[in-house]
Amino acid sequence: MKIILDAFGGDHAPEEIVKGAITSVNLLDDVEIILTGSTDKIKKVLTDYGYSGSKISVVEASEVISNDEAPTTAIRQKKNSSLVVGLNLLKENDDIVGLISAGSTGAVLTGATLLVGRIKGVNRPALAPCLPNLKGGETLLIDSGANVDCKPEYLAQFALMGSEYMKAMYGVDNPRVGLVSVGTEDHKGNNLTHEAFELLKSMNNINFVGNMEARDALSGNYDVLVCDGFVGNTLLKSTEGAVQAVNTLLKQEILKLGLKGKLGYLMLKKAFKGLKNRMNYTSKGGAAFLGVKKLVVKSHGSSKAETIYSCVRQVVALTNANMVKNLESGITSLAQNEG
Amino acid sequence: MKIILDAFGGDHAPEEIVKGAITSVNLLDDVEIILTGSTDKIKKVLTDYGYSGSKISVVEASEVISNDEAPTTAIRQKKNSSLVVGLNLLKENDDIVGLISAGSTGAVLTGATLLVGRIKGVNRPALAPCLPNLKGGETLLIDSGANVDCKPEYLAQFALMGSEYMKAMYGVDNPRVGLVSVGTEDHKGNNLTHEAFELLKSMNNINFVGNMEARDALSGNYDVLVCDGFVGNTLLKSTEGAVQAVNTLLKQEILKLGLKGKLGYLMLKKAFKGLKNRMNYTSKGGAAFLGVKKLVVKSHGSSKAETIYSCVRQVVALTNANMVKNLESGITSLAQNEG
Repeated sequence: MKIILDAFGGDHAPEEIVKGAITSVNLLDDVEIILTGSTDKIKKVLTDYGYSGSKISVVEASEVISNDEAPTTAIRQKKNSSLVVGLNLLKENDDIVGLISAGSTGAVLTGATLLVGRIKGVNRPALAPCLPNLKGGETLLIDSGANVDCKPEYLAQFALMGSEYMKAMYGVDNPRVGLVSVGTEDHKGNNLTHEAFELLKSMNNINFVGNMEARDALSGNYDVLVCDGFVGNTLLKSTEGAVQAVNTLLKQEILKLGLKGKLGYLMLKKAFKGLKNRMNYTSKGGAAFLGVKKLVVKSHGSSKAETIYSCVRQVVALTNANMVKNLESGITSLAQNEG
Repeated sequence: MKIILDAFGGDHAPEEIVKGAITSVNLLDDVEIILTGSTDKIKKVLTDYGYSGSKISVVEASEVISNDEAPTTAIRQKKNSSLVVGLNLLKENDDIVGLISAGSTGAVLTGATLLVGRIKGVNRPALAPCLPNLKGGETLLIDSGANVDCKPEYLAQFALMGSEYMKAMYGVDNPRVGLVSVGTEDHKGNNLTHEAFELLKSMNNINFVGNMEARDALSGNYDVLVCDGFVGNTLLKSTEGAVQAVNTLLKQEILKLGLKGKLGYLMLKKAFKGLKNRMNYTSKGGAAFLGVKKLVVKSHGSSKAETIYSCVRQVVALTNANMVKNLESGITSLAQNEG
């Protein structure tokens, strides 16, 4: 199974990306990695880490797209960037199943839409990260920011795509879909969610459980949270900010206690570490960009080798479960039911 | 200074509301409280707590509006409810400065808008709670859910009203206003925030510092966060949910450690308590409903006497600072600039 890694996307590129490639081919038998980027620099890292096998290949790409660049312009003008070269390879080669990039989110989404293309019938591909929930599982948030102005039909498709993802990735039988709203009652919401609610209720290929509140996003009572990208982005970033704030405040309060605080902290160190692990994304892959013709995964900008390896496993799992094909069928049957 | 308390709003009504009234008149010299609700029941609580002074009066109201009722219907039909009687008193008496209710949020907002009325020129009154921030101060979120479908002009007025609140309540000189968006760059956002951004930039009576991300809501880098009510509600509830999730997970992790965990927890107990205090709203009053002709404060449904007392102090502070008058002038000059 061939997977492309954008070797020059992310804060720790290319070193951590290349290390992630080495880990992946070492641990996953069937996987071959294609790295895109400066051949010289990539080969140097491969040599530094003693890799001389044949399961990693390099495709030259002399340019890099940064986070500051306007996505559409960057994709159009930097034809030799590691991302554009990678996306074109992905499009043109049937035996390459997916691409992973830790680079500019906007460029990855725009590039995937323009170069790889949407699945027939999909209005808007959507970015769908997983949040660790209180029941020890994962909850998918779709859309987390790719589409800031949505129509109700987009949300209906998000629900379908998110459900297919949870089935393929985690084997969830009948994913519970919640519509993010300002209250759980059916009539709560704004113009967009009122219309989306009726659409979701009428769909027979998803398990719509009704409106939900952002307060319960991490409860584990939902497998898929559906919302427009502006709301999803707010939900995701508020959650990150609040977790960070609690950590900061607790540290300050512990420091106030002096020696006693230090001792108490040492005794609970394992618990704090456990908490960090459970809130942590690095071992859980990246955010899938659902609705394009092939698998595209956006890994966090700060990704290190371990995260890259997780993203590779994610692409392998989704490939083995035929997610893209299932998603295509779902979209087709959704269109037929509506038509 | 006369203030109305809806004695039959909230989970702990009437007892905790009446206790809050007693605390308020005992601790605040100039304050007189008018309690609305069943005279018999209120008088019983006053007797139980040994209050026989003249600074608390009772106005009979035989009905109660519950959280399950549709707000508009409830306000129209339950003319003898503690809330409607209170709002009518507030409207009709110049010497009564404000009303506090821990009852149904929808009913309080609808009732205040219909019965007390909007300030001339205000498009939509907005609900504005304060969040405790990492710098030890408060950050106002406006709107937190009263208006789920907004126009750009509404957001411009929210910015103005929020600024006046922070000046009046906390003496913030030149409140920093951030527009909640999906990135900090000027061009980030959706159709609504793009237009609102231009309006906010053009206003000379606020200190607009640009787009902000929900991740920084608690940073203390902003005094006022402006957004539509759907986004604000998502931000607020995501934050609550994440704080709750961290607590739950940390508890689970500490329990796993057995005796060591128990000991460590005891040593850090003060720190956990300090954290709880800093994240806690009870000592900080309620959410002001800004844009109506008089002060209306929505206290949390679970409010106990301490919170009610905080809300009374809040109404006193806002009255002394002439907030409603200042807000009226601001709205007038905003309309003139636009005109």
